[in-house]
Parts: sequence; structure tokens; C-alpha cells
Amino acid sequence: MKAGFGTANQRTLLATALLGLLLLAYWLDGSRSNAEAADPLPSWNDGSAKRAILAFVNAVTADSAATYIAPAERVAVFDNDGTLWTEHPFYTQLHFVVDRVRSLAAEHPEWRQREPFRAVIEGDHAALARMSEHDVAALMAATHSGMTTDEFGAVVRGWFASARHPRNGRLYRDCVYRPMLELLGYLRANGFRTYVVSGGGVDFMRAVVGELYGVTPSQVIGSSGKNDYRLRGGRAVLVKLPEISSLDDGEGKPLNIHLHIGQRPILAFGNSDGDLEMLQYTVDGSGPRLAMLLHHDDARREYAYDRNTHVGKLDRALDAARESGFRIVSMKDDWNAIFPAAVSKTANSHEQP
Amino acid sequence: MKAGFGTANQRTLLATALLGLLLLAYWLDGSRSNAEAADPLPSWNDGSAKRAILAFVNAVTADSAATYIAPAERVAVFDNDGTLWTEHPFYTQLHFVVDRVRSLAAEHPEWRQREPFRAVIEGDHAALARMSEHDVAALMAATHSGMTTDEFGAVVRGWFASARHPRNGRLYRDCVYRPMLELLGYLRANGFRTYVVSGGGVDFMRAVVGELYGVTPSQVIGSSGKNDYRLRGGRAVLVKLPEISSLDDGEGKPLNIHLHIGQRPILAFGNSDGDLEMLQYTVDGSGPRLAMLLHHDDARREYAYDRNTHVGKLDRALDAARESGFRIVSMKDDWNAIFPAAVSKTANSHEQP
Repeated sequence: MKAGFGTANQRTLLATALLGLLLLAYWLDGSRSNAEAADPLPSWNDGSAKRAILAFVNAVTADSAATYIAPAERVAVFDNDGTLWTEHPFYTQLHFVVDRVRSLAAEHPEWRQREPFRAVIEGDHAALARMSEHDVAALMAATHSGMTTDEFGAVVRGWFASARHPRNGRLYRDCVYRPMLELLGYLRANGFRTYVVSGGGVDFMRAVVGELYGVTPSQVIGSSGKNDYRLRGGRAVLVKLPEISSLDDGEGKPLNIHLHIGQRPILAFGNSDGDLEMLQYTVDGSGPRLAMLLHHDDARREYAYDRNTHVGKLDRALDAARESGFRIVSMKDDWNAIFPAAVSKTANSHEQP
Repeated sequence: MKAGFGTANQRTLLATALLGLLLLAYWLDGSRSNAEAADPLPSWNDGSAKRAILAFVNAVTADSAATYIAPAERVAVFDNDGTLWTEHPFYTQLHFVVDRVRSLAAEHPEWRQREPFRAVIEGDHAALARMSEHDVAALMAATHSGMTTDEFGAVVRGWFASARHPRNGRLYRDCVYRPMLELLGYLRANGFRTYVVSGGGVDFMRAVVGELYGVTPSQVIGSSGKNDYRLRGGRAVLVKLPEISSLDDGEGKPLNIHLHIGQRPILAFGNSDGDLEMLQYTVDGSGPRLAMLLHHDDARREYAYDRNTHVGKLDRALDAARESGFRIVSMKDDWNAIFPAAVSKTANSHEQP
């Protein structure tokens, strides 16, 4: 017999294997039901925000639903500062700039006579509070250029190895929000591609956020400076120039989402006015959409701020939320934990996760 | 008994299932060996180019090899025009521009008196051959702006539904190289992420190349124009402006690779001087690297050109190949087929796949 299913021996093997597989599938099905029953978002309290997330994911992933969206279209975008990690009392990247100026000061004695460098080196808070955009640009240029992209990445990773939040004492890398890590994982387990879309510098973020959030460097979109392609010792390198190329904030977010992702997201998560256009661009697509704003209303466990702050101001976007259907997530009421269990807390930590 | 493995009945089920699974694994292993024995690159002749590809993929994927590279680092970049699809006698996108000017001419009677529009409308080849960069920019601006990104995508998809190559008569969408489709699939099956990095316009390419090459829109990097974020009828849209933002050619390729991918590729494939810096940037990384140049030396089945052509000139990169270790792929000798089996050939087709 030359039939297509091999020898009698092979057929017996196959039959036994298929029987075993059926039994295994039956057994696994029982296990899977238990796993599905487990809460994918344990740090989220049972409330309208959590229910909206679960309902949205169910609506776009259930094969039979009229609201089904194919995995290729499941793009989710997240702001970083204040949405995935703490941004108060000042942006993490600004802390890096201050530390970097101080560590480079020995090589630049002229900085002691030159603003805004003098103010940074001496910790002159009054002068720092008066800094203009021009001053900030000067600090950025001095700390974010004149080296290769690889060298800059190494400097940033080195800083993150020991830099700590000034109030809660955690390593900055441990100042990511546990409920958001759960949400990122839950979305990816349901076929979403997750992107970070932040006003922070793309080279700064990529040095660490990939491992923090489980995204690839290509899934990190941020503000960017110009670079120069050069041969150094016969080897091709990219040198960072002191010139801004793209500011990934406000309208810049949907523009960069189009440039980098090329698809309109179906889910967006932000926390400040700089995210308004990203959220609007998301909800204005056709079909099911979910846009959320994290409201920092938890002075006890993190910070409380919205309309009156210089860092992460939430004002216009809060006004737009009702009309545009953005959902407000209350840090105080919707989250039962803020940070992951940290291995590196200091004794004088204020935060209570 | 309250042991962790359930009731006796469940344990029997599990044991039978595991036995079946072992047998299935044994049986599948036999099948897999057969599948592995099948040639993943059937359109590639057995020669040094094909052997180099197979050896490279084996080197970076074999767990035990000193040359192993983790999947997260397996980034492969491909030029498009002349590398993944035909670029002679002129770029596909230029054909689109010409057709688009002609179809818009009725709405623009003034174009009949204005160069270079008159030359395009009347098919004045002598005048077209004298076109300056300024002329090309004017044609691009007239055909690639003043509409939303969504509207432009629909126009491009409509054009590709029927536009044909002027000589071989195939639909342009069927002018992709069969050996390269096999290579893209082979790399992805081995854990690579594959990117298109082309001088072509990113919105133009994304309208079709995703489905042609099996890449996501985010894996298409190209030249880009500026866009404007606007609310139209209360809905957020992006409107294409007549202004270049990034030219993805030459040094622009490694710069955009860093901006979009954020990792140095381990494999690069190009065909012209515009790919030189991308290939150099790739081979200058540490560890195993593969850079290839497709040499169009097949006048019978496609085209033959290198140093003396205005489209896809291969001159400096050919000189650099030996010193930098770029491998030359001969279309004539290394490929036994050029195009996929086409469903849409016309009777007067010249090509012989």
C-alpha cells in the first residue's frame, strides 16, 4: 500500500498521538479556564475604568463580535511621563540633565560663570525656577550632543543604574506604575502592539524603557535631535548634534504616530494636555476606540495635580474629556497599588505601594 | 488525598496525554526534518550568494554557536526600488506622478501652459529628460499634498489596482522579485524583523507594500513630507503639505534606521549607491553581519545596468564592496526566477520568469 499516510506502524503512532493530543487539549482546556478566570489587572480596583478596559479588549478580540478588530490593527499608544512612570516633582530626564551638568562641570570650568550652568551646578533653585526655554535648550545641547548615539545610551544606562527619585527614594527605574505594566502585558497578550509616545528624548528613553515596559526600541517614539552620519576610525557611527529635529508633544504626537506607526491607534493613554491631540486622533478613527487620562489625585501614595502645575498640566484635556469620550482614571480610586515591589528602596521612602 | 496533581482520574488523563504528546513530538520531529530539508530559497540557484545567506542565518540562530544573536537583535533592512521590485526604466512612484498629473489636468487648465506640467501632460520626452530637481519637486508637491493621508492612501491603492509596467506589461504589484519574497519569509521564519528602507515616499509605499512584502506599516521607512494636524468637521485628520521632511537616501538611511528602529541592523540588502551608507552602517556593527548588493546584470529577464544609469546607479557602492565585505548577488546567475507567477500578465509581456 502506497497511501499518503505512511506505514501501518506510522499510522498507529499517529493515531495514539492524536488520541493523546485530544486528551491533553481537554485537560489544558480546564486549566485555561482557570487561568482566564484569574484577574489580568490585579492592581486595578473593580470600577468603571477597569470594566471599560476589559469590555473594550473583549469587544475588539471576540471573533464573533461586530466590533472585532484584526490583530494587525490593534495599536495602543502610551504617553510616558506621568502615564507610565512618575513625572513629579520634575521630569526624570531633567534630573539626568542636572546630574550630567554637575558631573561634566570639572571639564568645563567656564560653566561656573555662565548661566544657566552656574545655577545648576550650585543648586540655585531661585535661578532655576526662572530658566527660559533658551536656558533649557542650552542645557540639553550640552548634555545630549557631541557623542555617538551608542555612547549616549551607555551614559544614560549608567545613570539609571543608581539614580533615585528625590522624594520616594526608589530607583527611577522602579518608579513605573504597576497597574500600567499589567495593562501593557494584558494588551500584548490580546494581540496588541504597544507603543510609548512621549515628549521625552527618544535616545534617552530607549536606553532603558524597553526592558521596563517590554517594548522594542522601534516601539519607542519621542522627541529627537538631529544626528550626523560619520566614519570614525573607518567605522560608521551616528553623532548627536545640538539641534532639535522633532518635538513629540501636542500635535507632534499624532504626526509622529503617523510617521513611525503609519496606523491610527485604537487605544491611547495619557495624563496631560500634551496628550490631547493623540487621544483625539485615536477616538476620531472609525470603530471601537478607547482613550484614557490618568488623573493624579493621590497625594498620599504619589502626587495630586492637574490644572495648576508646571509639570504634566491637565487642563484643556480634562475639559475635552466629556465631549470626546476620554475616560478618567483616578489614581486614588482605581489603583490599589502604585509601584512594583521594589528591590532598591531606601529607608526614608515616603511612598506606600 | 489533597496532592497538587488533582484526582486519580485527572492524573490518568494527564499521563495518557503526556504519553500521546511524546509520540506526537516523535512523529512531528520526522515531519519537521523533511520540512527543513525542503529548500527555503527555491528561486535561488545553488551558489555563493545563497550559501552565504543560509550560512549567516544558521550562524546567528544556532543556540550553541558563538555567533548566536538573540531574536530581539535580528533586524534586517531592505531597500525597495531595484532591490525588492523593479525600478527601470523609471521609478514606480514617478510613473504614479505622471499618471496623477494627467488625471488631475482637467481640474488645472493652467498646467497646459506651465512647465513641467505641460511636458508631462503632452508626453514631451525631450522636455522631461531636461527636468530639474525643482521641476520634480513641483510635480511631487502637486500630486502628493493638499489631501489627508487617508485620502492619499486611497488614491495610491486605486492606482496600483491597474497600473502596469511599461515594458513587461505586468501589474506593478506583480513586479516584485520572487527570490526576495522567499528571503523575507525565510528571515522572518528565523526570528528576524524585516524592514523596508527606501528613498520612495513612505505614504506611497505603505499603501501597498505591506501586503506585498508581509511587513507592517511601521516596518516601512521612507522619504517623508511634512503633515499638518487639523480638525476637519470636528474630526482629527493629517493633511499632507508640499514640503519635504526627510529624504531617505544615502546617509539618510542609517539616520532614519536609528530614528525608527533604534537598533543597528545585522543584515542589509540594497542595489545602488543610495544604499552604501546603510550597508556600511550594518557591517560596522560588532558580531556577524551580512550586507548584499543586487547586481542588475540580466537584460534578458529584467534589466542590466550599474555605473551608467540615472535610475539606481551602482558605482561607489560597487567599488566599496570588496573592502567592506558586501556580497554581490547576480540576478542572472543567482536567481532562477525573477517574478512570482502573475495572474495579470498581458499578451505582449517581454519578461520570462
